[in-house]
Order: sequence, then structure tokens, then C-alpha cells
Amino acid sequence: MGASLSLALKKKGILTHVTGVVSSLASKSKGESLKSADAILTAEEFHSSKSWKDYDFIIFGVPVDLTVKLIAQLPLDYSGIITDLGSTKKEIVHAVEARFWSSHNYISSHPMCGSEESGLEFANASLYEGRLCILTSPENAKVEVKKNLEAFWRLIGMETIEIPAVEHDSILSYLSHSPHILSSIMADWAANQKVVKRYTDLSPIPLNGGGFRDMTRIAGSNPKMWAAIFSSNQNEIYKSLLDYRDRLDIVLEKLNPKNTLNPKEWESFMETSRESRDSILKNQDDSKKR
Amino acid sequence: MGASLSLALKKKGILTHVTGVVSSLASKSKGESLKSADAILTAEEFHSSKSWKDYDFIIFGVPVDLTVKLIAQLPLDYSGIITDLGSTKKEIVHAVEARFWSSHNYISSHPMCGSEESGLEFANASLYEGRLCILTSPENAKVEVKKNLEAFWRLIGMETIEIPAVEHDSILSYLSHSPHILSSIMADWAANQKVVKRYTDLSPIPLNGGGFRDMTRIAGSNPKMWAAIFSSNQNEIYKSLLDYRDRLDIVLEKLNPKNTLNPKEWESFMETSRESRDSILKNQDDSKKR
Repeated sequence: MGASLSLALKKKGILTHVTGVVSSLASKSKGESLKSADAILTAEEFHSSKSWKDYDFIIFGVPVDLTVKLIAQLPLDYSGIITDLGSTKKEIVHAVEARFWSSHNYISSHPMCGSEESGLEFANASLYEGRLCILTSPENAKVEVKKNLEAFWRLIGMETIEIPAVEHDSILSYLSHSPHILSSIMADWAANQKVVKRYTDLSPIPLNGGGFRDMTRIAGSNPKMWAAIFSSNQNEIYKSLLDYRDRLDIVLEKLNPKNTLNPKEWESFMETSRESRDSILKNQDDSKKR
Repeated sequence: MGASLSLALKKKGILTHVTGVVSSLASKSKGESLKSADAILTAEEFHSSKSWKDYDFIIFGVPVDLTVKLIAQLPLDYSGIITDLGSTKKEIVHAVEARFWSSHNYISSHPMCGSEESGLEFANASLYEGRLCILTSPENAKVEVKKNLEAFWRLIGMETIEIPAVEHDSILSYLSHSPHILSSIMADWAANQKVVKRYTDLSPIPLNGGGFRDMTRIAGSNPKMWAAIFSSNQNEIYKSLLDYRDRLDIVLEKLNPKNTLNPKEWESFMETSRESRDSILKNQDDSKKR
């Protein structure tokens, strides 16, 4: 995400000097050869030779648990803008409010444009283009910081919306976190079915069609990042999956072999689902064509 | 599916005269203007003016319940090849075995290349290219029919594999039918969550990312066709969804807020899922890049 943002800044012709901070020397040399940023430091180099105040805009592009630790190190009188790209907000906002007791320059961002691919080599200058960036303001965040941050994301090509932390984490459990879990369960569920296994081995090409491929595309996305997301949004994910299970139970009861299916009822189930999808996608995409 | 197959035959330069049979006069004139086949008849016209024996190759491209009804009308001494494109096999094979008591020319086909789009205007001459066609032979099917049918699908660009009806329906419940239900549940589940609804209305563009869009792509696919599939594979779908629910329950227990998540355990959950997906996709696709 960070390297893509660095490339997007260059692509938009924004004159700025970007320093990327990476976790290892290997990533540093990879980033240097890929020109991921104007300068690249390891986290160790950054901490030993630089201070936060050497920069006027800080963007954390690390897992939520590490973001929370870094927030605790921020200088109280920092005058630039600070944000992150975190996928959950309650913990981050709580950390910011615990660190800054009076007015401050931290507003959290969530650009809705992840990828299953991680690593500097997959950086993509167009990743942010036309996507939504959710902003979440902790208590005491300065109004002008919000205006500047919104202008920054718009410059990158994004639309913005402000959503408070509690609502953000609830929405994301439904639209992203729990779907990741359901997708991962699906991959294991199918791969462990004996007949699927046996004929997958026998078949010259995979047995699955496009539906299964799409539904499991996000299964097993960046394990470290997702483990941190699950921990930091455990309650909301749990609640939304209980809701999903209740809905599955209703369907299971109808499918119970002791009952005869009513085709009309299933047609309307499929039709309602299509309308539901259209409402979430705001009728964009391929949804109208079907 | 039928119109795509007709176009594929032309694209491959196979000299043959294709008659398409459609349900309504409206579809007939649409098909004529789109040149979906060499000749197009409504089902009524076909039944009043033609006989099965006027053709040397019959392919049923209709829902499974209608396929079963048509099988019961087939002449016992038909000398051409007969197949279908059905998504479930037990009912079809049962109907064929009930109709033909001695050797016959019917072998069922399942080309794994559906689309959420239905209608003659979405016909695609490359739909079958590089995909798998599952063949299912009822009792007493002639060996040479199988050879000819395999050769036919290969000519169209497909790979083939023989899978018996029981195994086919079990595999498909995992790789297609139940995923369709899980996808449809997901669309409704998210669309009915109040906060998702409220902020979807407020947001300039949809709130979801690519994961949710992919996972719900098949939600609400052709309702009539899918209602027939659910009815004809009810038992297997029920069993596979019970299995899915058991796996969901294990995950829910771990997510219960009374428990503290172990990040290592979740990392390995995500890693195992990725391996599971890779095993089913036989490492094709984008799975290696992630």
C-alpha cells in the first residue's frame, strides 16, 4: 500500500520527497532497485538517524497492532499531518486519544483498495484511483488537518467520506473482515472433501468454475496483516458471523431433505440477493447486466 | 450456453447446420438477428413440425427439470448422439436409465463454463475454450458414443474427464452449488445491516472493496436455473452446507470475545487456506503470485 502510494504521488506529478521506511535490509535494496520511493530506510535506520519532525507528512502503512505502538512514540508537538492506512479504527483512535490530550494533527485513513498481493514488487501507481477513502477523526483532531488530508486523497484520485470508528469497524466486519474468514473457510472446506480431492488429482485441469475461484480469491490474503485485523476487530467480526450463521441456519432448515423445495421460493431468494448486491454496489459494475 | 456453443462451432470452422430451439417468438427473432444459429425454432414449432430423428446430434441446454421431461420423449431407436449441459447428474442419469433399457446413445455432459449472464445477447464463441467438460455415462451407453462426444468437446477446445453421477453431484455441491448459496446469503446479510445501509446511502461511491464484490458476483445468478439446480441436488447441498456450518462454528468459538485470539493460530489458518485454494486451482491463476 505504501509503495503504491509513493508511485501514485509521482504519477500525479506531485513534487515531493518520499521516504519509505521498510522492515529489513532485503526490502530496502528491493525498494531501491524498484525505485519505490526517493529514499528508503530500514526501521532501524529511521529510528537511529531520523526524527518524526524531519518530515511534514507521516503515513503509517503497517499492521494495526504496530500502528498503535508507533502512535505512542509520536511527539506531542508535531506540526505536520499524521495518518495511517489501517483496516480497523477503534484501536487506532483509542491510541491517538490516549496519546494526545489536546488538539493534534492525527486523522486516520482507510483507503478501500487492498490487494491479495503484498510486497514492493506488486506496487501499483493506479491502486487508489477512483476508490473510496474513509476518514476517521479522533477527538481533538484539528479541522484544517481534515481538510488537508481530504484534499490529499482527492489529489491521489480518491473519493472521501467520514465515518466514526465504531461504525467503520462494524461496516468493515460485514464488507471485508468476515468475508475474508468465510472465503478462507470455503477454501479449506472444499479442499478437504475426499471426492473433490480425488478428482482434482485425476483431472487434467482444475474442476472448479469461475464462481469458486472468485469466492476464494481473498482466502489466505497476507496472513500477518489479517491476523492483526482479526484481533483488533474480534467483537464485530464475531457478531457479524453469528448473524451470518443465523441466516445459514434458516437456509439449512429449508434444504433439510425432509422438506420439499419450493422452486418459487428459491427463485425469489436469488432475486432478492441480486437486489441486495446491487444496493451495496450502488448498481455499478456488472450488476445491471445480469 | 447453447448459443455460445453454436457460435463456437462456427468459429472452429466446423461445417454443420445448427438448429437452435428457443422458448418464445421473442427469443426466436432475437436469435435470428444475432445469427445465434443457422435456423431457429420455438419449442412449439419444433414439436409440431420436426422430429428428433431429423437431427443427428441433440444437445439439451435447458434446466435439469426440463431436461428430464425431454428425455422421457426421446425415441428408443434414435441413432444420433444425445447429450445435455446439465449442472446436476443424478436425476438426468436416472431419467436416461428409466427411458432406455438397452444400449443407447445418451451421455450427459457438464461443461464447466457458466456465466452469471443469461440471454442470447451474451453468447460468447470462446466460452468453452480451455475449460473442463465432465462426462457422465448412464448404464448401457455405447462406447463409441463416448469417444465421439469426447472428440466433439475437444474440437470445441475443452479438456474432458469422466465422473460418475453421484461423485459429480457431490463435487459440484462443494465447488459450485453451495458457494452460490453462500454468496447469496452474504449479499443479503450485508445489505440488511443498518450501518452498512446508512453509509452506503451517504457515500459518493460504494463502500465495498474488491473482496466483497468478487464474493457476491454469483449471488442471484439466473434465478430459474438455480432454483432447478437446488431442487435436483438438495441432499448433497444440504450435506455440504452442514459441513460448512460445522467449520464456521469452530471459527466462531475461537472468535468468541471471552477468548483472546492467538495471532499465530490465525496466521496459520490463513496460510492453510491459501494452500487449500492452490490445491483446488492446481496452482493455476493468480494463486502463486499472492
